[in-house]
Amino acid sequence: MLSLSLFIHMGEREMTAKVLGYGALQAKAKLAPYHFERRAPRVDDVVIEILYCGVCHSDLHHVYGDWATRYPIVPGHEIIGRVTQVGDNVTKFKSGDLVGVGCMVDSCQHCEPCDHGLEQYCEEGNTLTYNSLDKHDHMPTFGGYSENIIVSDKFVLKIPQNMELSSAAPLLCAGITTWSPLKHWKVNQNSRVAVVGLGGLGHMAIKLAKGLGAEVTLFTRSKGKEQDAVRLGADHVILSTDENQMQSAKNRFDLIIDTVPSIHDLNPYIPTLTLDGTIVLVGYLGDLNPFLNTAPMVMGRKSVAGSLIGGIAETQEMLDFCAKHHITSDVEMIDIQYIDKAYERMLKSDVKYRFVIDMASLKKDK
Amino acid sequence: MLSLSLFIHMGEREMTAKVLGYGALQAKAKLAPYHFERRAPRVDDVVIEILYCGVCHSDLHHVYGDWATRYPIVPGHEIIGRVTQVGDNVTKFKSGDLVGVGCMVDSCQHCEPCDHGLEQYCEEGNTLTYNSLDKHDHMPTFGGYSENIIVSDKFVLKIPQNMELSSAAPLLCAGITTWSPLKHWKVNQNSRVAVVGLGGLGHMAIKLAKGLGAEVTLFTRSKGKEQDAVRLGADHVILSTDENQMQSAKNRFDLIIDTVPSIHDLNPYIPTLTLDGTIVLVGYLGDLNPFLNTAPMVMGRKSVAGSLIGGIAETQEMLDFCAKHHITSDVEMIDIQYIDKAYERMLKSDVKYRFVIDMASLKKDK
Ligand SMILES: [Zn+2]
Ligand SMILES: [Zn+2]
Ligand SMILES: [Zn+2]
Ligand SMILES: [Zn+2]
Repeated sequence: MLSLSLFIHMGEREMTAKVLGYGALQAKAKLAPYHFERRAPRVDDVVIEILYCGVCHSDLHHVYGDWATRYPIVPGHEIIGRVTQVGDNVTKFKSGDLVGVGCMVDSCQHCEPCDHGLEQYCEEGNTLTYNSLDKHDHMPTFGGYSENIIVSDKFVLKIPQNMELSSAAPLLCAGITTWSPLKHWKVNQNSRVAVVGLGGLGHMAIKLAKGLGAEVTLFTRSKGKEQDAVRLGADHVILSTDENQMQSAKNRFDLIIDTVPSIHDLNPYIPTLTLDGTIVLVGYLGDLNPFLNTAPMVMGRKSVAGSLIGGIAETQEMLDFCAKHHITSDVEMIDIQYIDKAYERMLKSDVKYRFVIDMASLKKDK
Repeated sequence: MLSLSLFIHMGEREMTAKVLGYGALQAKAKLAPYHFERRAPRVDDVVIEILYCGVCHSDLHHVYGDWATRYPIVPGHEIIGRVTQVGDNVTKFKSGDLVGVGCMVDSCQHCEPCDHGLEQYCEEGNTLTYNSLDKHDHMPTFGGYSENIIVSDKFVLKIPQNMELSSAAPLLCAGITTWSPLKHWKVNQNSRVAVVGLGGLGHMAIKLAKGLGAEVTLFTRSKGKEQDAVRLGADHVILSTDENQMQSAKNRFDLIIDTVPSIHDLNPYIPTLTLDGTIVLVGYLGDLNPFLNTAPMVMGRKSVAGSLIGGIAETQEMLDFCAKHHITSDVEMIDIQYIDKAYERMLKSDVKYRFVIDMASLKKDK
């Protein structure tokens, strides 16, 4: 079995193609033009010329060496592109189709989460769009800061007609990451939803919750965000540093989407949940410091939960919903050559609300 | 309005009756025979001669002065008794009926939680069986370590026929506190439930989860509890200090009922939850120390929640279920004169699994 898989590996290696992207050879290295190999398309593969790629905070963490990363790395998992070729078994897509690729490109396809369309929670571990090893040929996966990408049809999304392509890119990570908990916790016209943090994820959470008909509130620590939050669809803005405002929000929210990516105090938000309300963390992996106090959770059957991106079927559902409701991300378009500067600005939250790379700019490095 | 209410107050005061109980006059005072006043029965009241009263950990905390307490105090909220008199408007009960009273004796009856039979979460605050003030005449409430109690019919439970009375008393707090989350999180024959801690609450959680048809596992830190856990209905026992056993329980439990009343580390249990699993705290109000790590919550959409006793309707449902499934508490019967010693033993977890006072013993102090 090992020798056979090695043989396949070798066989496919011979047919790989060189691709230009922007990569980092080691932790803390600057991103620079980098040539790498993509596999020869398999029978279920879709070859996609990349048009736009959103810039996610996790890209930055991988390049900066903050997280466990396998170098060299080519980041990018908010990908919009056009199909240029499909494998023999692919019927859902054809050359010329506009498509998207998000954070995952494969999963086991037979565990219980996979059976339920929740590939993000695959029990055998899914294959990430970059910084993973392909399950079949064990080649490293490289992301969307590149000319093209080759992805199994099951993990390719249809981009609905008339969707503005460049501003749709962030839907593939920021969009689905906030959509999934909104749907899982059944947000609808009768819901009161609050959002903590107004960045790439937060601004999508406001738009999507509003699109679902909920009454939407932004919690923010800085006064300057009120106007923008209302423009994005928020009905109310609560200054979380204002004790009176927090007090008047007691028992109010069915669901709080907490998008803050760094360590922060959850305790002020718990009392603002209704009976059976949930605060769901979508951006922070780490310790709840200061200590989370259980008293308001017990006294009001309130929950603290986490949620990770979203499954493929619900990503398609979200894209279709966004097309119908004219929702995309607020983006600032950049050339790939600007990426280091973009990362620096992201660290200062100096972007409204997502950088998207126009991948045509990559031709300058050819 | 004030003067009218004062008048009613005064009017009723004249008709109060002296009752003998065991009370503490101040924090840390020993419990001793204590005479206090109960109101004259109102039109919706049920007068109950108390036969048995379970001894809850919260009784001990109030007597010892660990919590905010209004002295003098007469503890006891696991009450089984016999109706001796009913008010003119009471139709559900009649003299001679066997009844129960739990942790609450009143609530606003018009807020949303009350409308949904969740009086424990009453937005105006419910009236506790002891250590509260009655909403109408503002007299202090005194609990079940006493000859009798007078309770509005809405908060009186019917004890099903053929139920063993003395061992039924703990169902009114320990039982409902574990039953409510089991039902809220929809435990059934397909569920895998774990219980943390084997005390008054924990042993009821095992019995009730088993009664609902779930596969039940006890998490324990001490080896000696295995045999007893199996006798109570547990299918498995996991030594939470054994890394291998914890590892093999990964992604296993739909619901964990955490009954531990003191500070403890939740982190080892989170990975043992399934996707969408919940660990619910029913015994601990305080800080989650050490810090709760969100990573396994995000990676598996797992929740940490709290739950408080249970509503009146679900308490009746639980009593009826217990009668049908022959479930009561494992108890050690004591005389009221033994109560200080009982508290000392409870602090050492030296009781299997609940002390119940035979209130006939109170006659010795007459
Ligand atoms: Zn991302
Ligand atoms: Zn899977
Ligand atoms: Zn109790
Ligand atoms: Zn109420």
